[in-house]
Amino acid sequence: MASSVISRHLALSLHKNLHLSVSGCRYASKAAPKAQLDFEYDGPSMKTEVPGPRSHELTKQLGEIQNVAAINFFCNYEESRGNYLVDVDGNRMLDIYTQISSIPIGYNHPALLKLMSNPNNLSTLVNRPALGILPPENFPDKISESLLSVSPSGMSRVQTMACGSCSNENAYKAMFIWYRNKERGHTTPSAEDLTSCMINQGPGCPDLSILSFIGGFHGRTMGCLSTTHSKAIHKLDVPAFDWPIAPFPKLQYPLEEFSRENAQEEARCLEEVEDLIVKWRQKGKPVAGIVIEPIQAEGGDNHASADFFRSLRKIASKHGCAFHVDEVQTGGGCTGKFWAHEHWGMDNPADIVSFSKKLMTGGYFYRDEFEADKGYRIFNTWMGDPSKNLLLAEVLSVIRRENLLVEVTRSGKALMTGLNELQAQYPGILSRARGQGTFCAIDVRDDATRNDILTKARNKGIFLGGCGERSIRFRPALVFKEYHVHLFLNLFNDVLAQIK
Amino acid sequence: MASSVISRHLALSLHKNLHLSVSGCRYASKAAPKAQLDFEYDGPSMKTEVPGPRSHELTKQLGEIQNVAAINFFCNYEESRGNYLVDVDGNRMLDIYTQISSIPIGYNHPALLKLMSNPNNLSTLVNRPALGILPPENFPDKISESLLSVSPSGMSRVQTMACGSCSNENAYKAMFIWYRNKERGHTTPSAEDLTSCMINQGPGCPDLSILSFIGGFHGRTMGCLSTTHSKAIHKLDVPAFDWPIAPFPKLQYPLEEFSRENAQEEARCLEEVEDLIVKWRQKGKPVAGIVIEPIQAEGGDNHASADFFRSLRKIASKHGCAFHVDEVQTGGGCTGKFWAHEHWGMDNPADIVSFSKKLMTGGYFYRDEFEADKGYRIFNTWMGDPSKNLLLAEVLSVIRRENLLVEVTRSGKALMTGLNELQAQYPGILSRARGQGTFCAIDVRDDATRNDILTKARNKGIFLGGCGERSIRFRPALVFKEYHVHLFLNLFNDVLAQIK
Repeated sequence: MASSVISRHLALSLHKNLHLSVSGCRYASKAAPKAQLDFEYDGPSMKTEVPGPRSHELTKQLGEIQNVAAINFFCNYEESRGNYLVDVDGNRMLDIYTQISSIPIGYNHPALLKLMSNPNNLSTLVNRPALGILPPENFPDKISESLLSVSPSGMSRVQTMACGSCSNENAYKAMFIWYRNKERGHTTPSAEDLTSCMINQGPGCPDLSILSFIGGFHGRTMGCLSTTHSKAIHKLDVPAFDWPIAPFPKLQYPLEEFSRENAQEEARCLEEVEDLIVKWRQKGKPVAGIVIEPIQAEGGDNHASADFFRSLRKIASKHGCAFHVDEVQTGGGCTGKFWAHEHWGMDNPADIVSFSKKLMTGGYFYRDEFEADKGYRIFNTWMGDPSKNLLLAEVLSVIRRENLLVEVTRSGKALMTGLNELQAQYPGILSRARGQGTFCAIDVRDDATRNDILTKARNKGIFLGGCGERSIRFRPALVFKEYHVHLFLNLFNDVLAQIK
Repeated sequence: MASSVISRHLALSLHKNLHLSVSGCRYASKAAPKAQLDFEYDGPSMKTEVPGPRSHELTKQLGEIQNVAAINFFCNYEESRGNYLVDVDGNRMLDIYTQISSIPIGYNHPALLKLMSNPNNLSTLVNRPALGILPPENFPDKISESLLSVSPSGMSRVQTMACGSCSNENAYKAMFIWYRNKERGHTTPSAEDLTSCMINQGPGCPDLSILSFIGGFHGRTMGCLSTTHSKAIHKLDVPAFDWPIAPFPKLQYPLEEFSRENAQEEARCLEEVEDLIVKWRQKGKPVAGIVIEPIQAEGGDNHASADFFRSLRKIASKHGCAFHVDEVQTGGGCTGKFWAHEHWGMDNPADIVSFSKKLMTGGYFYRDEFEADKGYRIFNTWMGDPSKNLLLAEVLSVIRRENLLVEVTRSGKALMTGLNELQAQYPGILSRARGQGTFCAIDVRDDATRNDILTKARNKGIFLGGCGERSIRFRPALVFKEYHVHLFLNLFNDVLAQIK
C-alpha cells in the first residue's frame, strides 16, 4: 500500500508547499510515517484563499437559483482523493469534515470506482424500484450482505429510507404504532380510531410524544424537528409538537478527573427524565419513546457516560417507553466501534437504532416487536435506494479488508493526545478536548475565535467544521491514518500560533 | 426505430402466448400499429401466476428482515425493458403502474444506460456531496440544464431534496418562514422568538397551519401526514397537527355532461375553504399555506376544473396564504403537459410547486419571496443527490428528442376512448372513466371486484394499480404509445369478460 515515492513526494511537498519548518513549529508532533493510501495525495496544496475566485463566481451563479448563504466553496470531486478535498480553484485540503461526516472511506476510493464501473450494476443505477412493493431479486441478499452484517445487538430487522430525517420520522412512527398496539391489546382499531385519524383527531391520531434532550439533533422535518434542540435557526418559525425535553448532562472534561461531579450531573438529568415522563402522562400526552444520540453532535459534541445510557434505557423500559438511539452521525465506525452505543457494553441496548450519512442509505434497525402489524403503515414510494445499498456493501467490505476500525482507534488516540497537548500549550484558546475514536471535538474561547481558527485552518489546507456554540468538531473519514493526524496537528499548531 | 421483425414477432406472440383470438374478443380495439421502441419487448409473456414460486421464496426470505405485507412480487430489473416489467419467475408484464408512477421513460432506456456507463460520471456516483455547503462545480449548470429547463411559470428558483415527503416538508417550512417574516415586517426575530422555539413553544414555534383537502395525499412524514387524508392506514396511531381540512369537489363524470352540477359542487368547496381560513385564524392557528394536488392521485384520481383551481389561487392570495401545488405524482409529463397545473392556463398559478418520482430527484420550485432569508433554515446533509440530477437531465433530453408529451397526449386520447367504450360495454362493472393525458382512472363497482380485476389482469400480463376505494389508476411511463394502449385494451377486455 504505502509507496516510498509518495513519501518522498510528501516530504518534499510538506517543505515546499506548506513551508513547514522546525523554527515555525512550536508544537512538535511525531514524524509522519509513510502514507498508507496509495491512491491519495501527499499533502494539502493551496493556491488561493478559500473560497477562491471560481467558487465566488459559481456561488453567484447558484445564488440566482437558490439560497447560497451556507455554501463554503465549490468542489472538484473528480480530483479529490482519499482524505483530500479539491476545490474548483485547485486548492487541495485535508478534509476533517467529510461532507458533514457522511463520507466513509474518502473520495474516489478505488473499490467504489470499480464497483460503479461494473456493467452488472448498471440496471440498479437506472431502474429505481418502489422497494416496498416491487423489490429487485438481489434485495434480501444485498441487505443481508450490507446492513444485516452490522446489525446492532438484539436486532435482525431493518427498514431502509432515503435520508436521515425520513429514517427518524419513520422510526418515531414505528414507536407510536407499537405503543398504540400495546394500549389496544393488539386488537383491531376501533371504528372511531379509523374515522378520527382521517381528520387529524384522537383517538386515531393520538396525543403521544417523543422525549428528547436539550442540545439534541434528529433532523429537520416536522416530527424530527420537534425533537431537535440544537440551534434556534434550525427551529424558528416552524410549528412543533408539545413534547417533553430533558436536560442532557453537562459534563466536565477530562471525564476521568470529574467522575464524581459528572455522576451527580447525570443523576440530576435522569431524575428529570423520569419526572417529565410522569408529567407528560398526566398531561395526556404519554411518552411513547425516548430518542437520544450517543454523542450529541450538532449540539456541540456532548458526551455522557455508559452508565448514564444504561440507566436511561432502564427508565425507558420501566415506563413502557421505546428507546431509540439515533446513530445518524455517530454510526459507521468513526468512534472506533461500528456503532457508538457498543461502547455502553449492553446486550440489548436499544429498541430502534437509526442511521444515514456514512451508511450511504438512511434507515433504522428495530427489535421484532417494532415491526408494523400491517403493510403500508411504514411506507413511501422509494423506501431507500438499492444503488446506495451496493455502495454500502462495498464500503463495509473495505472497512473489514483494511481493518479500518482498528485504524480509527489508533488515529483517534493520536488525535486526542495531540489535542490534549495543544490545549495544554494554548490554555487561553482551547479547552474541553474530548472524543471517542476520531469523533473528537475541542472548545474555543469564543465563537469569533472559533470561526477565525476555522478560516485560517482552511487557508492552510485543513478543512474543519464547527458545532455547538464554540466547538470545533473532527469528522475525518475512516481512512484518516495516524500519519494524517500528525500532518493536521502540525498545521493546526501553526494556526493557533497566529491567534492573538 | 420501429422494426418489422418486432412487429412480426408481436403478431406471433400475441397469438401464441396470449391466446388472443377474434372469438375471445368482445371489445375490438384498433389494430396495433408497429412497435415504436426498438429496445423493448413485443408483448407480455406469462409463465406462472404472479407472484410465482421464486417471488414467494424471496418474500419469505425478506420477511425475516422487514414487513413484506405490501410486496407484490420480486423483479428482474436487468431483463425489464421499456414498458415491460419482468419478474423473477420470468413473467413479462406490460407495466401501467411504473413503480407507483415513478419511472419516466421505461426500464433500461438506452440513453440512461449510456449515461451511467460514461466514466465521466463515475465521480458523481461515488462522492455524494453535502449540496448545501460544498456543491460540485457543475451543480448550477446541471440544475439549469435539468430542473430550470422545466420551471413552472413564474418561478426561477428551485431547491432539491431526496424524496417527495422531504420536498413537501421543506416546502411547508418555506411557507411558514415566509408567513412569519411577513408578520414580523421582515425585522430580526425577537429574543423571545429565539428562546421559545428551542423548547417547541410559541412565538418561536408558531401555531400556524397548512390547509389541505379530504382525499389529499402529500407524504407520510409527520408534517406531510397532517395534510394527508387518503386512507386510515396511512395515518392511524401517528400524532398530527390540528390543521384545517376542506372538502375536495366530488365531481360527476363525464365532466362535460355535468358542468352545472359540478360548478355548484366546486363553489360549495371553495366556500368551505374560505370559512376554514377564517375559522382557523380565529382559533389562533392562521393558515400559512394551502396545499393541493392538480389531480388527487392516491385519494382516487379526483379531478377538479381549471376554474376551481383559479378560484382557489385567488382565495389564497386574498387571505395572505401561500399556494402550494403538489405535483409529486402529476408532474413530469404524464398529463400531456409537463406540469398538470399548466392545464389551468394561468400566468402565475402557484407560489410553490413540489415534485419527486418521475423527476428522479425530489424538490420544489418557489417564487423569489419564498426563499428563506438565511442559510441553514432549509437545510439537511444531502439536500438531494447530484447523481439523480444527471438522470433527470438525460430524461428531459429524451422527452424532447422523442417528443414524448405529444405521444402522451395521443396515447391518452386512445386510452380514454377505449375506457369510455369499455365502460359502455360493461356498465355493471365500470364507471367514471376519467383522465388527462395517460393519467387516467376508472371506477369498479366495488373493492372486491376491483382487486379481482387487478389480479386477473396481472396474470394476463397487465400490471395495474388501484387508488381510492374502488378505482383502477393508469400510470404508464411516457413511452407508452398508442400501440401499447390497444394491446392493453384488448387484454383488459378479456379480463372484464371473465368478471361475473
